[in-house]
Amino acid sequence: DVKRMLNGLPPGDVAHLLESSTPRFRHILWKMVDLDNEGDIINELSDELRTHFLSDMDAAEVAQITEHLDDDDVADILQQLPEQVTREVLDAMDHQDRARLERVLHYPDDTAGGLMNTDTITIRARLTLDVVLRYLRRHEELPAMTDSLIVVNRNDRFVGLLPLRTLLVSDPSRTVREMMDTDVEPIPAYMPDDEVARLFERHDWVSAPVVDDDGQLLGRITIDDVVDVIREDADHSLTSMAGLEEDLDTFAPVFRTAQRRAIWLGLNLITAFVAASVINLFQGTIEKVVALAVLMPIVASMGGIAGTQTLTVLVRGMAMGQVSRSNGAWLINRELGVGILNGMLWATVVAVASSVWFEDWNIGMIIAAAMMINLVTAAFTGAALPLLLKRVNIDPALAGGVVLTTVTDVVGFVSFLGLATLFYG
Amino acid sequence: DVKRMLNGLPPGDVAHLLESSTPRFRHILWKMVDLDNEGDIINELSDELRTHFLSDMDAAEVAQITEHLDDDDVADILQQLPEQVTREVLDAMDHQDRARLERVLHYPDDTAGGLMNTDTITIRARLTLDVVLRYLRRHEELPAMTDSLIVVNRNDRFVGLLPLRTLLVSDPSRTVREMMDTDVEPIPAYMPDDEVARLFERHDWVSAPVVDDDGQLLGRITIDDVVDVIREDADHSLTSMAGLEEDLDTFAPVFRTAQRRAIWLGLNLITAFVAASVINLFQGTIEKVVALAVLMPIVASMGGIAGTQTLTVLVRGMAMGQVSRSNGAWLINRELGVGILNGMLWATVVAVASSVWFEDWNIGMIIAAAMMINLVTAAFTGAALPLLLKRVNIDPALAGGVVLTTVTDVVGFVSFLGLATLFYG
Ligand SMILES: [Mg+2]
Ligand SMILES: [Mg+2]
Ligand SMILES: [Mg+2]
Ligand SMILES: [Mg+2]
Ligand SMILES: [Mg+2]
Ligand SMILES: [Mg+2]
Ligand SMILES: [Mg+2]
Ligand SMILES: [Mg+2]
Ligand SMILES: [Mg+2]
Ligand SMILES: [Mg+2]
Ligand SMILES: [Mg+2]
Ligand SMILES: [Mg+2]
Ligand SMILES: [Mg+2]
Repeated sequence: DVKRMLNGLPPGDVAHLLESSTPRFRHILWKMVDLDNEGDIINELSDELRTHFLSDMDAAEVAQITEHLDDDDVADILQQLPEQVTREVLDAMDHQDRARLERVLHYPDDTAGGLMNTDTITIRARLTLDVVLRYLRRHEELPAMTDSLIVVNRNDRFVGLLPLRTLLVSDPSRTVREMMDTDVEPIPAYMPDDEVARLFERHDWVSAPVVDDDGQLLGRITIDDVVDVIREDADHSLTSMAGLEEDLDTFAPVFRTAQRRAIWLGLNLITAFVAASVINLFQGTIEKVVALAVLMPIVASMGGIAGTQTLTVLVRGMAMGQVSRSNGAWLINRELGVGILNGMLWATVVAVASSVWFEDWNIGMIIAAAMMINLVTAAFTGAALPLLLKRVNIDPALAGGVVLTTVTDVVGFVSFLGLATLFYG
Repeated sequence: DVKRMLNGLPPGDVAHLLESSTPRFRHILWKMVDLDNEGDIINELSDELRTHFLSDMDAAEVAQITEHLDDDDVADILQQLPEQVTREVLDAMDHQDRARLERVLHYPDDTAGGLMNTDTITIRARLTLDVVLRYLRRHEELPAMTDSLIVVNRNDRFVGLLPLRTLLVSDPSRTVREMMDTDVEPIPAYMPDDEVARLFERHDWVSAPVVDDDGQLLGRITIDDVVDVIREDADHSLTSMAGLEEDLDTFAPVFRTAQRRAIWLGLNLITAFVAASVINLFQGTIEKVVALAVLMPIVASMGGIAGTQTLTVLVRGMAMGQVSRSNGAWLINRELGVGILNGMLWATVVAVASSVWFEDWNIGMIIAAAMMINLVTAAFTGAALPLLLKRVNIDPALAGGVVLTTVTDVVGFVSFLGLATLFYG
């Protein structure tokens, strides 16, 4: 039946099914999951859903379902629980498990230390490969994603890696020292997780050793966890630019969704009132020439569109680690150039269209000038703003759009209505 | 010196450096790259930059620098070259290389077949592990990302996998048949690459076998290439929603950038004129009550913001394969609920603020009603539109935003100015 089929699926598939379900169906599915599978499935869920299911469990249940998970995964789960529960779960563990886990919990979730597994297989450099092979055969099984053995010295300091690919093709009488790879740089435990992800991407690693400040081996990071970091970081720019939360639950219920979105709408309402109060200054001119009210949203919206394009290029480039202080100025200049070129093109088009429409060449000249001013402003703001926000440690993906459209609205209305007032007023 | 340091870096690092450089500096760097490293570096570059550097090479050069790359990577490069050059490169290869490469080229770039390497190590089920170990030792080296050996029958049909993790811990006198893993489903060659990526993510695979319709082994897909697919697909929603091209080059020169952005601005200009012509219908009413011109952008912009949030949730959910026909209706309903709740909240706030500002409770009532109408319309459009666009095979990330803001602008202006005309007209 359904229950048996569900419990036969890989945990990642069940997690995907839960994330693709409406709240009610999700609840029914979760009830059908065997206790033995709960840990693996919870581990694959996004933070939001994970918290949801964990909130129904007490410490004993959490301890039970996380028993066979990797330390990094248990750490992720514990970090989402209230401190009280975390302590109870830790107390329920045996001494050795707790010690290993505390090593991971010691590092923030978004650093190499928080990402690492502690299930390393270490060997010494003086052994022959034959001894290594016999040592491996004493294991019940090797940990998943083991693509190399980690060579350490007597003080547990990282020395090098012996890839299984090398071990399997080499003469068994050679020593580890002769065959190991020593130009791998181990990952320092405090490296941010996005940097770790970039290293994995660029070097095509399957796993990599993590060390503390003294070069002492702490654990290893595996590609499956790195893939999750890549997914989350790529998702961050998209959701933040729309003012949505990270780890967004697509099927969150109405009320919770409305609550979260309300803040963003409120923020944007304030900026809309700022723009409105700018228009308010020019009531007299609009009364005289109503065509201005008709055309003014065109100037503002084109600025918003152009600025958003520039902002997106910058936010994306910054997330990929491509934009630095040294090339930021070049980007601002490039965008100004683009703003001027597209400003000239579309100002001309808009000028002709508006003049023909309202049979008034003056209004065409005025909107062209305003369009030019606003597209150049949009280019500059879209490029300079994220660089500035980052320097003051504000997330450009989240704050950038709100500030940008305020600027393009205000500048759009002021330049268009201001020039019109000079002319018609 | 710099040149030596550059050529000592891993190809992924050099590629990142090139992608983070302005055009002029990029050119200088590329000139310093040794011919031997060019293939590996070109392989790591984004499509846009890759085409740029390849356009300067003739077939002989391409053949030379791609000689030692994986077939899937050579295929990617050849698919970006003019057909004439591709044929010349293929002709310059020896018979065996060409045959292997043509197997990959036979499949579209965005399918499992186009992603696969052909460097599989295959074994037969009747062998003992001891024989397998001796067979492996006859190799100079094992291909990168080899985490399992692929078991095939005499007709080269896929039978199962023997993970190296199992091989290394098992009794050498056991047979492959006894130890192999047979519940792995091989990947069909025509599976789309985003589905492949989801399989890898959910099952935490390092590599997976690819078969044709008859179950015959064609090659294997490795996690490093899957990571690139994940990156690209996650990037797609972000860039498309801003009307930017995929594989965007952050440091593209002014003129090319301006050209590409121009189309998007032109498209948005048309929709802005549509909105303007709607306002134009109400000139008479605006002339009577200029406050309407002041407040009307608020109604339109709040609709745009709310609609964009809904659209982003849908586009993201669809890209992650969470949204289907069966739960699409639920999402539309949820968004309508959210629209009604936030509509009531912010309509009230706007009504009070506007009434106080213009000392006219009527204008407050009118803007509240218009806001309510527009937020509910935005919710419905933001949710239903991407589902509809996908059904007619239009990319919702690209087309959704333009259509959505046209709808929210038009509905915003018509409802606000229309109600005002009924009342003041
Ligand atoms: Mg994890
Ligand atoms: Mg996390
Ligand atoms: Mg992170
Ligand atoms: Mg963690
Ligand atoms: Mg792990
Ligand atoms: Mg890579
Ligand atoms: Mg995992
Ligand atoms: Mg590739
Ligand atoms: Mg693709
Ligand atoms: Mg390909
Ligand atoms: Mg490959
Ligand atoms: Mg996974
Ligand atoms: Mg690669």
